[in-house]
Amino acid sequence: MIAEILSVGTELLMGQIANTDAQYISRRLAELGIAIYRHTTVGDNPARVKEALGEALSRSDIVITTGGLGPTEDDLTKEMVAEYFGLEMELHRPSLDAIIARMTATGHPMTENNRKQAFFPVGATILPNAVGTAPGCVVEADGKAVAVLPGPPHELKDMFEKQLSPWLAKRSGAHIESKFLRVFGIGESRLETMLKDLFHTDNPTLALYCGPGEVQARITAQAKDSETALSMIAPLEDEIRRRLGEHVYGEGVDNSIEKTAFTLLKQRGETVTFAESCTGGLLAARLVGVPGASEVLMESHVTYADAAKARVLGVDEGTLKEHTAVSEPVARQMAEGARRISGADWAVSTTGYAGPDGGADGTPVGTVYIAVAGRGGTVVKECHFRGQREYVRTLAASWGFNLLRLEMEKN
Amino acid sequence: MIAEILSVGTELLMGQIANTDAQYISRRLAELGIAIYRHTTVGDNPARVKEALGEALSRSDIVITTGGLGPTEDDLTKEMVAEYFGLEMELHRPSLDAIIARMTATGHPMTENNRKQAFFPVGATILPNAVGTAPGCVVEADGKAVAVLPGPPHELKDMFEKQLSPWLAKRSGAHIESKFLRVFGIGESRLETMLKDLFHTDNPTLALYCGPGEVQARITAQAKDSETALSMIAPLEDEIRRRLGEHVYGEGVDNSIEKTAFTLLKQRGETVTFAESCTGGLLAARLVGVPGASEVLMESHVTYADAAKARVLGVDEGTLKEHTAVSEPVARQMAEGARRISGADWAVSTTGYAGPDGGADGTPVGTVYIAVAGRGGTVVKECHFRGQREYVRTLAASWGFNLLRLEMEKN
Repeated sequence: MIAEILSVGTELLMGQIANTDAQYISRRLAELGIAIYRHTTVGDNPARVKEALGEALSRSDIVITTGGLGPTEDDLTKEMVAEYFGLEMELHRPSLDAIIARMTATGHPMTENNRKQAFFPVGATILPNAVGTAPGCVVEADGKAVAVLPGPPHELKDMFEKQLSPWLAKRSGAHIESKFLRVFGIGESRLETMLKDLFHTDNPTLALYCGPGEVQARITAQAKDSETALSMIAPLEDEIRRRLGEHVYGEGVDNSIEKTAFTLLKQRGETVTFAESCTGGLLAARLVGVPGASEVLMESHVTYADAAKARVLGVDEGTLKEHTAVSEPVARQMAEGARRISGADWAVSTTGYAGPDGGADGTPVGTVYIAVAGRGGTVVKECHFRGQREYVRTLAASWGFNLLRLEMEKN
Repeated sequence: MIAEILSVGTELLMGQIANTDAQYISRRLAELGIAIYRHTTVGDNPARVKEALGEALSRSDIVITTGGLGPTEDDLTKEMVAEYFGLEMELHRPSLDAIIARMTATGHPMTENNRKQAFFPVGATILPNAVGTAPGCVVEADGKAVAVLPGPPHELKDMFEKQLSPWLAKRSGAHIESKFLRVFGIGESRLETMLKDLFHTDNPTLALYCGPGEVQARITAQAKDSETALSMIAPLEDEIRRRLGEHVYGEGVDNSIEKTAFTLLKQRGETVTFAESCTGGLLAARLVGVPGASEVLMESHVTYADAAKARVLGVDEGTLKEHTAVSEPVARQMAEGARRISGADWAVSTTGYAGPDGGADGTPVGTVYIAVAGRGGTVVKECHFRGQREYVRTLAASWGFNLLRLEMEKN
């Protein structure tokens, strides 16, 4: 199957927003094994929408449109699809009821324009919108299909996953299942090499999504039913886990490294504190970003100056003088001091040169020492990150959570 | 003048990256008063690039391409432009010298493929690349123009600003100047209302760029020379500053609210510390994100639990019990305690409900108290933010820097 994406929205042509919808759909279609040769964006202009739709349909089997489903007069995507295929528009009563219910629940007055959102080309398959007022639809005619999706990204994603992805699967007679494995501490290119031979299958497929210091591996399988698809994922997952070992820290698309550390702490009924120098509050801020953080974090400290390391955390001034603040013994004393003054079960410390400059003693920029202190002792890791200041700090914080997670798994 | 953007790159069709280049160019063209009716994206496929180029040129005066200028065999944008217009490719010696110099400086071996990057369609205007190996070019033929730009966003932006923008201005016989004003503490829609009558001019133009809690106003003017353009910006800038008063905190595209606070502190030779509850380290982390932060921040504390507020900062336990941790007096005592224990000139505290839940006493989610303590006393602001946990925390931290900035300006 060959697909094209037609994005409708003057705000895209004006550069007010980036076309993340096209990116999202493209990525998901690639995973579903659907080829995609072109993206087109036009404004909220009826003639140009219709012209671009015709061109896209001449080159492909299915065109997925985004945007132009709102209540205003500018929003004309469905109408142009109907006009292109020579179809009338008709009211879809369940959609109207859903729109009225949503408007009532949110306390907004129902307008005549909102009624427009419940009209669709005759014969269209309706795609309900679980998170907004604009339903989508699929129109099939002349051996081609047009899927009409809303523009707001959260509505688009919800509708794609819950409605269009199953529709595409049904059309191809397949059920599609996916599983995310979260991987930390292996770069993308090394990971590609380690898993190289596993990419060469069409079903299941393996795709990597990369973030700072971590990679998500998505395994997707298609089969006649869900159980078969899952049973196709399992051996590939086992093989990836066997190769990557403790680098796999979790599953699921929302499961960040700090959330993994949080969940482990909560399960164990333990607390953590941080002693941050170069990360300057990032570790605490990221943990506090997880709802429920107050169960595992009572207090935390940023000790940026040497004097603060000594006074707040009790780091020995002789050690600071002899080894400098960016050193293994200082990282160790920071973590142990933070654990002592806070009474927390665990403490994580960071000290390093995030940039733009390295140390006066020649220690290169990107050098960071990270320590984790616990009941059973303290471990320190020396890291050498390459990149800009923000990137080095983000990686250092992520490594702090990763080392904490590994220590908890060991002890 | 009517323009189209043609983005070339299989990584865009696969959804590996979002097309932020198209957004950037669109925004800048809108500011320059150039109409744009369509974006097209195709993969690294010579036939499809040429086909899409022809279609785009049939509808517009200028086509701006991005991507496909790399050293690999896949990278064929320039070659397809030449083929479309029936032009030969020729070596541009200064570009080759620049590529050799860059490869030598970065210690990379020069390959035959890199030589390819110095070849251009005969007669093209070369656009040097100040931050990468791939120069761009403008090819003019048949009364139309094609501007060929590199794909990596930092190279694209640099080349657009330094090379293509002046070329476009020269073509239209105009000089273009821009000025950014940074505005804090007024929402986008209120700001639009306050400045409504100022948007209705073509030259200078006024555009708003929105971020969490803040807005940037960009004023752009075109004139026969730079001085005239600047003199057209000045009265509009004065009027905006008059209407927005202390809400304008700075100028320039890179000048964040924390950088403004940092610069003020540095100029005054003063230091700051933070006592963070709901922001959980964000204030410290954002300040440490500014290079040179060690001059103004020695230490900072996250006191998430009530007991930590009392023990670390000396907040009175009776006050905590009577008013709860999310209250004006606790915010005040947190800031004053942090200032006392650190010896810093200024202290900023935050305490509030970031979500998902509000207080057990019925205090609504989004309620945050922010205090700034200084030599001259303490001010406390009660804020009511609406949004998700991350958004509330980001706004609270930004407001902390804004209040600190206002206090410094007063004292």
